[in-house]
Amino acid sequence: MKKCVVLLSGGLDSTTVLFWARKRYGDVRALTFDYGQRHRLEVRMARRTAGRLGVDLSVLRVDLAAVGGSALTDPAIAVPRHKGIPRLKNGPPPTYVPFRNGVFLALAAAWAEARGITDIVCGFNVIDSPDYPDTRRAFVRAMSRAINTGTRAAYGPPRMRIIAPFLTMKKSEIIRLGLSLGADYSATSTCYAGGKKPCGKCSACLLRARAFREAGLRDPLLRKFRRKERR
Amino acid sequence: MKKCVVLLSGGLDSTTVLFWARKRYGDVRALTFDYGQRHRLEVRMARRTAGRLGVDLSVLRVDLAAVGGSALTDPAIAVPRHKGIPRLKNGPPPTYVPFRNGVFLALAAAWAEARGITDIVCGFNVIDSPDYPDTRRAFVRAMSRAINTGTRAAYGPPRMRIIAPFLTMKKSEIIRLGLSLGADYSATSTCYAGGKKPCGKCSACLLRARAFREAGLRDPLLRKFRRKERR
Repeated sequence: MKKCVVLLSGGLDSTTVLFWARKRYGDVRALTFDYGQRHRLEVRMARRTAGRLGVDLSVLRVDLAAVGGSALTDPAIAVPRHKGIPRLKNGPPPTYVPFRNGVFLALAAAWAEARGITDIVCGFNVIDSPDYPDTRRAFVRAMSRAINTGTRAAYGPPRMRIIAPFLTMKKSEIIRLGLSLGADYSATSTCYAGGKKPCGKCSACLLRARAFREAGLRDPLLRKFRRKERR
Repeated sequence: MKKCVVLLSGGLDSTTVLFWARKRYGDVRALTFDYGQRHRLEVRMARRTAGRLGVDLSVLRVDLAAVGGSALTDPAIAVPRHKGIPRLKNGPPPTYVPFRNGVFLALAAAWAEARGITDIVCGFNVIDSPDYPDTRRAFVRAMSRAINTGTRAAYGPPRMRIIAPFLTMKKSEIIRLGLSLGADYSATSTCYAGGKKPCGKCSACLLRARAFREAGLRDPLLRKFRRKERR
């Protein structure tokens, strides 16, 4: 039986990739990280999605709040609020968490190695948010090489693989794919601000809203809150 | 002023590389990991050495006990006791911690990036213990590439560097170098078993003993315990 571990943050992309992986692997485990994030709600969403699917979820703790340097881990750095999707700058935004996916992939590799699992599946995508260096193909390739030289894979097959099927997909395409696979996006968390209700002003909320618009769909998460407010 | 961060485990090699770095950098910080290791004594040793030198030490927590797969993090896996230095096998020993240095370097890169530090200094060496894949040059090179593609270094200089000056040195040479720089090896912890007194039977104790023998020196850590026992 083919095994894999899915990096499940509880956001839209990783929730979709979990559904994607269930079609391709007989044994799917999920891993999420409790890293001192402002938007810890995503851990709850990861638990909910994994629970509904009967997927075994492990939560690993790693103290990125002590690392700091990001609006998502340091309460003293504000999450920027925008009117429209912010333009690219020549460097990552304040919501970039230093080398977060490097840390997550390293931990996932360690976890997978300890369990004889070779495939690490993640929902990275760069089309809609290219300003996060630790989601790009060059990084994924280099990290894959680091894992294959620094684990028991260095002794010979089987090799470990980082599988990122959404790298070149638009977020609207990811949403359409997810819906076709049965994903429930009302049980995801995207907002950087960390509240239950999406703030609608952070770059993550804005990118999600644009993706649903492009897909010609309504975001079930927003509908849930609108229904609540009408009550 | 040139800055660096030293990975200080509290063992012999990393203690030496801290002294090495102090000769070369004007601003030296140290980072150690509280990762659920059996031999947590090394965190205390790292504190002691950093404290004596007035080096700022940060302790990062990461739960490698939940990752498991090693005698150093899983109490159910025994640390092997040997009569002599064990022969190499075609794979890592039970005391190998899955991709530990991958996790540590990823966290160090994140920490350094958040502080504008480019140089990560570590005491990896492979001559005396070649059966740990995550200390080899191929891994260090690949990890360096992953860091430079997955952090803000991807946007342009300055590049980040992993500096491992002891990669091709014998442990006996490392000891001689450390002593010439003033290192106090009585404030280091090497034993895998985790007790205050070195067990003398684990591979780490045996390699350390051989290195002191080859250097024609007595291990001050053992002398300390012998003195205690005579009292």
